[in-house]
Amino acid sequence: MKIYRGNIIFTKQKDSFEVFEHGCVAVENGRVVAVAPNMDPWKGQDAEVVDFGDHLLIPAMSDMHVHAPQYRNQAIGMDLELLPWLENYTFPEEAKYADTSYAERMYRRFVRDLWRFGSMRVAAFATIHLDSTRLLMNIFREAGMGAFVGKVDMDRNCPDTLCETVEEAVRGNEALIAEFKDPNALVKPIITPRFIPSCTPPMLKACGELAQKHQLPVQSHLSENTSEIAWVSELEPESRNYGDAYNRYGLFGQTPTIMAHCVWTQGEELELIKRNGVVVAHCPTSNFNLSSGMIPIRTFLDMGVKVGLGSDISGGHDLSMLRMMVYAIQVSKMHYQRDKTKRFLSLSEAFWLATKSGGSFFGKVGSFEPGYEFDALVVDDADLNHSDYSPLHRLERFIYLGDDRQIIHRFCRGQEIPEPRIQ
Amino acid sequence: MKIYRGNIIFTKQKDSFEVFEHGCVAVENGRVVAVAPNMDPWKGQDAEVVDFGDHLLIPAMSDMHVHAPQYRNQAIGMDLELLPWLENYTFPEEAKYADTSYAERMYRRFVRDLWRFGSMRVAAFATIHLDSTRLLMNIFREAGMGAFVGKVDMDRNCPDTLCETVEEAVRGNEALIAEFKDPNALVKPIITPRFIPSCTPPMLKACGELAQKHQLPVQSHLSENTSEIAWVSELEPESRNYGDAYNRYGLFGQTPTIMAHCVWTQGEELELIKRNGVVVAHCPTSNFNLSSGMIPIRTFLDMGVKVGLGSDISGGHDLSMLRMMVYAIQVSKMHYQRDKTKRFLSLSEAFWLATKSGGSFFGKVGSFEPGYEFDALVVDDADLNHSDYSPLHRLERFIYLGDDRQIIHRFCRGQEIPEPRIQ
Repeated sequence: MKIYRGNIIFTKQKDSFEVFEHGCVAVENGRVVAVAPNMDPWKGQDAEVVDFGDHLLIPAMSDMHVHAPQYRNQAIGMDLELLPWLENYTFPEEAKYADTSYAERMYRRFVRDLWRFGSMRVAAFATIHLDSTRLLMNIFREAGMGAFVGKVDMDRNCPDTLCETVEEAVRGNEALIAEFKDPNALVKPIITPRFIPSCTPPMLKACGELAQKHQLPVQSHLSENTSEIAWVSELEPESRNYGDAYNRYGLFGQTPTIMAHCVWTQGEELELIKRNGVVVAHCPTSNFNLSSGMIPIRTFLDMGVKVGLGSDISGGHDLSMLRMMVYAIQVSKMHYQRDKTKRFLSLSEAFWLATKSGGSFFGKVGSFEPGYEFDALVVDDADLNHSDYSPLHRLERFIYLGDDRQIIHRFCRGQEIPEPRIQ
Repeated sequence: MKIYRGNIIFTKQKDSFEVFEHGCVAVENGRVVAVAPNMDPWKGQDAEVVDFGDHLLIPAMSDMHVHAPQYRNQAIGMDLELLPWLENYTFPEEAKYADTSYAERMYRRFVRDLWRFGSMRVAAFATIHLDSTRLLMNIFREAGMGAFVGKVDMDRNCPDTLCETVEEAVRGNEALIAEFKDPNALVKPIITPRFIPSCTPPMLKACGELAQKHQLPVQSHLSENTSEIAWVSELEPESRNYGDAYNRYGLFGQTPTIMAHCVWTQGEELELIKRNGVVVAHCPTSNFNLSSGMIPIRTFLDMGVKVGLGSDISGGHDLSMLRMMVYAIQVSKMHYQRDKTKRFLSLSEAFWLATKSGGSFFGKVGSFEPGYEFDALVVDDADLNHSDYSPLHRLERFIYLGDDRQIIHRFCRGQEIPEPRIQ
């Protein structure tokens, strides 16, 4: 057993923080045994104590939606609108991932940067390419970080370089699933139809069958912007709404499912999300950058819809889940400005979204309650703590002002994760 | 004469960048003489050449609205709404500035951090306290940075500790004006009635007379949120709108004037701003954090209203004008999402706002055109430039992803500015 000491902060529930000033968290076999305000519970026991002094000790964060192969395009081309941006930036870049040596150079940097910003669990889109997707999974595995990685499936409305047949898609997925079949592994496959406009009905059907057959989770995009929604209703006239289009193919909560964006989700679609337990990946920076809109998150939370936060590189420009919390609060404040019954997100709610709520997709992850996997960050905020702030004010300043510089240790499943090597 | 070489980027006008890859800018007596793609114009001349290699060389930025004494409150208390936040955080903190030793410790850190983030010109609110306001001005002067610093004037709707009489306010302002009277100095006073709700008509009248008598600029707050606007219309029933309330006291463009926020400015008030040449300080992070709203900036720019960007610490949480550019673009994209005729801000427009447009309040500042004061930043973005980006993509990545780490030299009025000392 190891006992870590520090200023421990986490959220059991969204409305309040648990704070243990100079407290202790005991960890055994990668999991939290207990949290306590002092060493009393372990008096006389044989435990190694690691004292982080006055540093903050918080759960690591989960990035619920990110496109790994768009890492090179992070923070460029923001002057373009969605369609020319996809044509000029996204698709040509993803096509490069046919080349595994290019993929390795970029994917190693990408994983290193997730590490820098303290995201220890990730739900990532790769590309259609089997070899570079396998490479990304191995890079995560080598790093010791947790990830669901999806080989992207798409067979319409995309350039030839990124099109495949349904048979190719199924074969590629089956190969990865066979290689990464340990259900307890940190890195696992996830079925990833790009989105309805990129997938023919046979492709969607095949994806649903793969998820069902192997009991694998699913990730895709939903109701990101109004033109896209109109397009989907043309492509899938038999579906009652965009979400129903996935649902009809067994891709909407039949196995654990993440749907990114859901900016315009309401009414029947929202009820279906709730009923099926679909997890919404809220990606606020992306929703700003691509002029998508502002998610009505209070409505989602009031209904009990599951929500996590996503960076959505490269629609989003920032890998830091700290920044995602800030943006999520700010989006909620714009709804509150117009309708005072839509209470804005509190700091604890934003923190809970980025840790326990998102983390629940990966198992018992994102909290320090007993039984949770010990995914943690040690934060040395001395440079931000110039005026003797309280632990919660220190956390707030770290969330609003901090960056990778303050994160001095990172743990995933109880192991300290060293800086992943880049090329 | 000195010639600085580097990848030079600036904006002459808002719609496009001037780019000189491995170009030259010649500086004499603190001002730009010329910019050229190479050394040819200065062949055989006696000039010292400083070569910044592959680094970016861009104009420094101007922060058009910031509350220096709220520095300690940066990024805390964001869960509170405006009124309890003012009562619990803002006013108690400002009251501490009666103590000049506290003020010195905080103001030195504040100025050092402005320096870190590359803001070489600032329009700052201090507090009502003469001595600590003088101290702040001297700290800016010692640093070699440019600032308009306002002793805040207020005499109603504020705690006793921050109330003064009109006579005290006039006496304090006159004292500072006498001490800082060099019109060519980098640090100068600015008349600063806090905002209409904090100032009785006699106080507003006295402020207008001070500005007129000494031909000094003015700064205050305008139309930040809807409750405030309703309050002002009760307090100043004879005014046609909030802006007109300032205008009637000679505080609205009679001398150069900055009005912070203007989120809800429209109609007659907007026309008055335009007619009087009032400069709008757009503070997008603050407008999110305080649930104020989203400024319709395209309307302002289309009308030719002058706009700059402000951090508004501590309503805003971030001192970086890079982040202000990103947020300004994102706010404009939310208007564009609803009305496609309201084109969103381009990167060059956002850059122009933070440099040349805001800088114009300080003189010929914020561009590298001949005659402009050489306020510049040298940006070593090697850590962000991992994949051979073009100079403009490098600038875009620096704006979206960069921070103080990439800024390796800072110039103000031709002088390199070393790190200001803190206590």
